Amino acid sequence: MKLGCCYYPEHWPEAIWAEDARRMAAMGLRLVRIGEFAWSRIEPEGGARYEWGWLDRAIETLHAAGLQVILGTPTATPPKWLVDHMPDMVAIDEQGRPRGFGSRRHYCFSHEGYRAECRRIVTALAERYGAHPAVVMWQTDNEYGCHDTVLSFSDAAAASFRGWLAARYGTVDALNAAWGNIFWSMEYRSFAEVDPPHLTVTEANPAHWLDYRRFASDQVASFNREQVDILRRLSPGVDITHNFMGFFTEFDHHDVGRDIDVATWDSYPLGFLEQFWFSREEKAAYLRQGHPDIAAFHHDLYRGCSNGRWGVMEQQPGPVNWARYNPAPLPGMVMLWTLEAAAHGAELTSYFRWRQAPFAQEQMHAGLLRPDSTEAEAAPEVRKAAEVLAAIGPQQTAQAPVALVFSYAPAWVIGIQPQGQSFRYLELVFTWYSALRARGLDVDIVSPEADLSGYRMVVVPSLPILPEGFADKLGALTCPVLVGPRSGSKTDSFCMPEGLAPGSLRDVIPLTVTRVESLRDGISEPAEGFAVTRWREDVASDLAPEWADAEGRGVVYAHANIRYCAVWPDAKLLGLLVERMAAEADVPLTHLPEGIRIRRTRTHVFTFNYSAAPVFVPHLGLTLGPASWHLDPL
Amino acid sequence: MKLGCCYYPEHWPEAIWAEDARRMAAMGLRLVRIGEFAWSRIEPEGGARYEWGWLDRAIETLHAAGLQVILGTPTATPPKWLVDHMPDMVAIDEQGRPRGFGSRRHYCFSHEGYRAECRRIVTALAERYGAHPAVVMWQTDNEYGCHDTVLSFSDAAAASFRGWLAARYGTVDALNAAWGNIFWSMEYRSFAEVDPPHLTVTEANPAHWLDYRRFASDQVASFNREQVDILRRLSPGVDITHNFMGFFTEFDHHDVGRDIDVATWDSYPLGFLEQFWFSREEKAAYLRQGHPDIAAFHHDLYRGCSNGRWGVMEQQPGPVNWARYNPAPLPGMVMLWTLEAAAHGAELTSYFRWRQAPFAQEQMHAGLLRPDSTEAEAAPEVRKAAEVLAAIGPQQTAQAPVALVFSYAPAWVIGIQPQGQSFRYLELVFTWYSALRARGLDVDIVSPEADLSGYRMVVVPSLPILPEGFADKLGALTCPVLVGPRSGSKTDSFCMPEGLAPGSLRDVIPLTVTRVESLRDGISEPAEGFAVTRWREDVASDLAPEWADAEGRGVVYAHANIRYCAVWPDAKLLGLLVERMAAEADVPLTHLPEGIRIRRTRTHVFTFNYSAAPVFVPHLGLTLGPASWHLDPL
Amino acid sequence: MKLGCCYYPEHWPEAIWAEDARRMAAMGLRLVRIGEFAWSRIEPEGGARYEWGWLDRAIETLHAAGLQVILGTPTATPPKWLVDHMPDMVAIDEQGRPRGFGSRRHYCFSHEGYRAECRRIVTALAERYGAHPAVVMWQTDNEYGCHDTVLSFSDAAAASFRGWLAARYGTVDALNAAWGNIFWSMEYRSFAEVDPPHLTVTEANPAHWLDYRRFASDQVASFNREQVDILRRLSPGVDITHNFMGFFTEFDHHDVGRDIDVATWDSYPLGFLEQFWFSREEKAAYLRQGHPDIAAFHHDLYRGCSNGRWGVMEQQPGPVNWARYNPAPLPGMVMLWTLEAAAHGAELTSYFRWRQAPFAQEQMHAGLLRPDSTEAEAAPEVRKAAEVLAAIGPQQTAQAPVALVFSYAPAWVIGIQPQGQSFRYLELVFTWYSALRARGLDVDIVSPEADLSGYRMVVVPSLPILPEGFADKLGALTCPVLVGPRSGSKTDSFCMPEGLAPGSLRDVIPLTVTRVESLRDGISEPAEGFAVTRWREDVASDLAPEWADAEGRGVVYAHANIRYCAVWPDAKLLGLLVERMAAEADVPLTHLPEGIRIRRTRTHVFTFNYSAAPVFVPHLGLTLGPASWHLDPL
Ligand SMILES: [Zn+2]
Ligand SMILES: [Zn+2]
Ligand SMILES: [Zn+2]
Repeated sequence: MKLGCCYYPEHWPEAIWAEDARRMAAMGLRLVRIGEFAWSRIEPEGGARYEWGWLDRAIETLHAAGLQVILGTPTATPPKWLVDHMPDMVAIDEQGRPRGFGSRRHYCFSHEGYRAECRRIVTALAERYGAHPAVVMWQTDNEYGCHDTVLSFSDAAAASFRGWLAARYGTVDALNAAWGNIFWSMEYRSFAEVDPPHLTVTEANPAHWLDYRRFASDQVASFNREQVDILRRLSPGVDITHNFMGFFTEFDHHDVGRDIDVATWDSYPLGFLEQFWFSREEKAAYLRQGHPDIAAFHHDLYRGCSNGRWGVMEQQPGPVNWARYNPAPLPGMVMLWTLEAAAHGAELTSYFRWRQAPFAQEQMHAGLLRPDSTEAEAAPEVRKAAEVLAAIGPQQTAQAPVALVFSYAPAWVIGIQPQGQSFRYLELVFTWYSALRARGLDVDIVSPEADLSGYRMVVVPSLPILPEGFADKLGALTCPVLVGPRSGSKTDSFCMPEGLAPGSLRDVIPLTVTRVESLRDGISEPAEGFAVTRWREDVASDLAPEWADAEGRGVVYAHANIRYCAVWPDAKLLGLLVERMAAEADVPLTHLPEGIRIRRTRTHVFTFNYSAAPVFVPHLGLTLGPASWHLDPL
Repeated sequence: MKLGCCYYPEHWPEAIWAEDARRMAAMGLRLVRIGEFAWSRIEPEGGARYEWGWLDRAIETLHAAGLQVILGTPTATPPKWLVDHMPDMVAIDEQGRPRGFGSRRHYCFSHEGYRAECRRIVTALAERYGAHPAVVMWQTDNEYGCHDTVLSFSDAAAASFRGWLAARYGTVDALNAAWGNIFWSMEYRSFAEVDPPHLTVTEANPAHWLDYRRFASDQVASFNREQVDILRRLSPGVDITHNFMGFFTEFDHHDVGRDIDVATWDSYPLGFLEQFWFSREEKAAYLRQGHPDIAAFHHDLYRGCSNGRWGVMEQQPGPVNWARYNPAPLPGMVMLWTLEAAAHGAELTSYFRWRQAPFAQEQMHAGLLRPDSTEAEAAPEVRKAAEVLAAIGPQQTAQAPVALVFSYAPAWVIGIQPQGQSFRYLELVFTWYSALRARGLDVDIVSPEADLSGYRMVVVPSLPILPEGFADKLGALTCPVLVGPRSGSKTDSFCMPEGLAPGSLRDVIPLTVTRVESLRDGISEPAEGFAVTRWREDVASDLAPEWADAEGRGVVYAHANIRYCAVWPDAKLLGLLVERMAAEADVPLTHLPEGIRIRRTRTHVFTFNYSAAPVFVPHLGLTLGPASWHLDPL
Repeated sequence: MKLGCCYYPEHWPEAIWAEDARRMAAMGLRLVRIGEFAWSRIEPEGGARYEWGWLDRAIETLHAAGLQVILGTPTATPPKWLVDHMPDMVAIDEQGRPRGFGSRRHYCFSHEGYRAECRRIVTALAERYGAHPAVVMWQTDNEYGCHDTVLSFSDAAAASFRGWLAARYGTVDALNAAWGNIFWSMEYRSFAEVDPPHLTVTEANPAHWLDYRRFASDQVASFNREQVDILRRLSPGVDITHNFMGFFTEFDHHDVGRDIDVATWDSYPLGFLEQFWFSREEKAAYLRQGHPDIAAFHHDLYRGCSNGRWGVMEQQPGPVNWARYNPAPLPGMVMLWTLEAAAHGAELTSYFRWRQAPFAQEQMHAGLLRPDSTEAEAAPEVRKAAEVLAAIGPQQTAQAPVALVFSYAPAWVIGIQPQGQSFRYLELVFTWYSALRARGLDVDIVSPEADLSGYRMVVVPSLPILPEGFADKLGALTCPVLVGPRSGSKTDSFCMPEGLAPGSLRDVIPLTVTRVESLRDGISEPAEGFAVTRWREDVASDLAPEWADAEGRGVVYAHANIRYCAVWPDAKLLGLLVERMAAEADVPLTHLPEGIRIRRTRTHVFTFNYSAAPVFVPHLGLTLGPASWHLDPL
């Protein structure tokens, strides 16, 4: 795994670039990402009058120091002159307000004029640097969708949406039928009558929303593809990446991932812990470490996104600036995070950023250097990590014993129609992931389209819309398979399937979900060694339940190697399920103490202590200090 | 009491209509409500080109099965072609945004063009079906005001408001004087200068708001009256109803109720429990039953709304889709709710809906049938309820011993100027109702205009603006009367009365409210067997208080048969008051266990167990299971 | 100290003015503030057709009763005709919506047309009454900024902002460099391209925000100065005041204070307790008294605002109408608050208002009289206060032993970039103030520009942007000085200083802040007799820490007489710091029981009991009843 950093030569006096480059190399870094916000310096005035000089010199300076460059396209930050030239290129938010200039990502993915400008600037960049020996990778744009920017309610978006619908449905009658627009007299007489689902009095048709989300996701993918096509043509053989944001489901990363070579993601474990659903207790226990599964979850997810090639493009090196509260990592955490990435098979880990900027929005975001160029706390950890990585050599990953099936559409479907406000798809998948990892299992997070053969356990936490052939694919497996609540509960048009949920899964497990209920937070109904919370389904089946609640209502059903879990599983039920499936699959478990995680490559076993206290680790027979790790050959 | 259901033939293949009708009849249903969202199928293209065929056949099919039809006017869902034809017909929300097409209720009550369209479609419907033997009732529109749709800030609304003000005040000087517009230089020089109270920097004049709310309520009533006038002319002798939404005070239901024949309401006890002010403990205890007084409260309210004729147009038969959390009713609850309606004298209970729709917004809302046409959990309970109702025959109600005076204007007055954010008028009335019912009392919820003679106890929880003659009416009573805080505290123009609160009530009880204070949640000040919370008034009077707090500040004053309660009464004070008044009135009480309620008709006594556990009921000498009932002849 | 009241003759029949005036005088009042909302009565139709008659007579009536008049300019409430004449004079809120007519403060400070109208009306008023013997003081406008009205996003504001930037930076390149606009390609090519920071996708550049806040504050000051200039010219020798709102930091009160003669503020201790950051326990303990330091804090703040001359223009006399909950003051509190003002050296305390208005927005706001003209609870307390004040004579204040340095820019800087959401600048300053007062210390709250010589202790709770020369000024002091976290952490352009925080303070204490972290609510890290919460900084220094946490991380550093506190100080650390500094300064402390406060003038020592219970006060050797006071000669 190569180490790298994000660097902004345009932020610093040219006089210090060479020294920066020398220090990067000396610290053990090999990669430098540059350029992704520099449009106003590449083209200060518009009119295709480019200022390449500074960028030529920056790349040369890095190259001269032995560093390789990841070059970003600058399309996430259209300059003011461009916005003023085509003011309708900005996105319109859900309240109908144009999004203002003065930060980033203010563009609408559907604006053809802006797309043309992006093609122009990407072409110019690729023509100039496509064959430069220092440039080993391109990054398209930056964090698509960040700051709630996937959806736009602009005229451009509305027009594109209508075209998308026409292509999907052919006739407006087909659309009306698919969406059930007869309900509430919502029928359209032409595609021209259809708007985005915008400021409706009460909820819009969920089918309307789902198609709008699919459309918006497709717009991200096609926006990206336009850049990829140019780069492939003008910079053949150079890898292309995009840096995805963590815990982000607004567009389909698998779609974008198919078009690029290397899926990278931006890893901010402390910020994510603070901003997401973790409990008060977890936020306290992992204050300066992040929950032990946050980074690993994304590693295993992105490994499945782009044909197995992946990395970390932005690694938190200290406190960030954007969470409600921003603590500092424990000493050792930056190294631990780096090794965790290696243990999951990353090609690269790039720290964000080389030097903390003393100005503008992110001035409180730590870097490897402080603004005064002294080394920040992370720097020695990075130097040490580089040494360790060099010592152990490249790490290859094997297929994991467990496949965890994850997809983006379920997040949209359940977000559009939660039915119970505590049913969060991403949390459900993460909770499964955590239960597996806490028992020492390596996990591959895969899309429903993935080949599932070769796995020894398969878990589908929830999959409301079953892709064509998915049930058959599960049926063909012989390993233990678990399918969770709401699976098969919707058709492709966001309707309930004929014959009710779980739809075509009935072909592999004979049961019908006859009713669902959601339970308010705080309601906990006792069952056999666990409790039912949040969600439960009534199941009609000739099968006897494998687990039931205290009143005998079935909770888990099993048929041959297929299980169906009809509730939101609490931690105890997750444990029971993992243990039974593992026993059936003859997969050995390692019951890890709180805060301890392990991960295997083809050659090594990594053990990590995410706890803030020393922990005795039975399988090692020794005590690991807080934020520390241990490495053994496999 | 007739049973019925809500049915949408336009949602289903015509081939199954007859079988549906047969099954409805076989289940014991006699009424079917149809049509209220079908505008786009009745008139698919505009231009008064009606498609009656399908509706003719649907009505015939139901008729042929012996079912009677309640026919809804489709004005709650204007189709897209109509909105596109007159885009300014949509309401404007309080943020100034036009409300979008794509759900329902997107119209502005003040738009004359839309009103003309409504008159046209209602005329067309009434001409075609006004004399049809199957049509036994008309429903106007659907749930006026639902989804926050009473108020609109459109140009049409502003113009109508100005006319309404001119009619009310004659001259703008009179308006300025009545509102006190000299305060903050808010004086107008003409009615044309007056806008709706819209996006003001801080609160607008409460008198301005009150008149805007009155105007908006009047617009609902006049919108409804236009339909009623057409239906009376073209369908003479056929009953007219509107289905009011529960816990909804945005317009005056008494006003609308006067114009129709039968007041119906939509009863969703589990959704209402979740969405309203009930405590965490109540929400847990009554998770799958709803608070024991939710349905009964509305039954007793709507019985007083339209000359005693009322019913339930939509009865929850299972989980709904619109609350934060949506649990399923306990087995037995649907039957219990049905009998509770009968016990209060309903003419009809109609379940929403016959078959769960597998598409669009309400696909997660249960019906009597599942989407696959199998019977849902409620179906056998409905069948059983029909049998019980047939066995006991029609239930007549007698005047209750207690009148609870309720009105809509107090909800507006207190909502506009809460003074303490936990003073919620509807909760106060409900709390009184619950205290009375928990002691076995039947209650009539009546408007201040009602004839109060014949009652043995009268409770006025709060009545800030006293209608002309109301104090005299109380003074003429001889039974115990209780008047609650804030009564008589405002004039008709939302000013404080000369001589201070309680205004003209001083004629019947000699006291003056010299100061009020609101107390934050958690503040509880001890008194004689109860505590003062939320609200207290300083009272100057020669009367010695009947109850005082621990420091001797008066809380309740009595003079002859009139009592004044100067605080928000907690549960204990409510108990003390009910018990003392009942003793004075010689009305016997039945102290019911938690969760138990009783209700008498002229012929029977119904006992209901709303608890989730079995409860021993002393007055019966037996134990009732959860969600069960007991019936005795009176 | 003179007592007075706020009076609105335009609200009442002229027939009762004389009697009102007589009663005011009899109650011991000497000052009457009038006129500040009366524009629509002074100029009912526009066109400079003034109606002076009523105001002439009102002033004469007051004068005849021996009362002195504070005359307000009516610019906070432009009438409807004016708004209709220039509709773009209204402010635009941050959502882009024009602020509506119908309350107050709906104008944009930057609208030149409205400014011209204000100059006209102020000129007319000053010409008419500038030499009137009754008029002893002018009040400009009313509560600048109240209801979130400092910022406007109008075209007028944008244009003025561009001019302000051009004046500040000279060239747009200088602006780009100062703000760091290269970050995210936010560079401008001309001042014309710069907008207010409006609806950006994510946070705008903090430098952009800070300049917008500075600009907006300057607009308030220049708006005020226009009135002051007219009044000085046309009413020479008459004092000018403005009534500032409490706990309000949206514009720089020191700037406005420099232009006027007497800084007055509006004191609503119960409303402020409810609406601000106080804990649930404090809100309960001081429900009817307000926190013991709310009023005193502002007294000491405004004494430092306008060359030592200050007063209370609006004193809460009973429940108010605008907090979430509005309890009544304990008996005695109005007198206590009055004496507290005297003890801090106020020139005047004016009660808001003489008689409670029975109409419009503030009808639930108590006055000295009830709407029926009977005396409200406060009236006898005022009468008694007047007697006490007469008996003790004018109170002069001496320089306090402690200077607490407070400024407005830190509130903007930290509000723009909190980094931890519980870091509230105003709370931090208040907490220091309270810790000092609880130990019996008198405090001067002074601006960073103030002369600090003569103080025996100086506390700078936080000062992110150090004014030129400030560090030197501290360095020249010999008394104990404490500087708190984040001080010196920003340059004037909202960047991090070269050499890192605390910037130029390193000249007086040799340390560097190498990293900061914010801690979520509930996180409490143990230290030597206190705990670290909310905020902590890593400090590099050769100094040994004076206090450290349990793990040895430095918390407080001292060098000669200068201390640096690197954390948010909890109550215990505040106590340790105050006690050590006082010991070093040889300033005696008086450890006061909970709820007890003392304050010294040159001649007297006042002791106040803010507790709701009797409290034994050791330094007096006696017990003070709730809401009571004790007075001794110094
Ligand atoms: Zn080992
Ligand atoms: Zn019986
Ligand atoms: Zn004494």
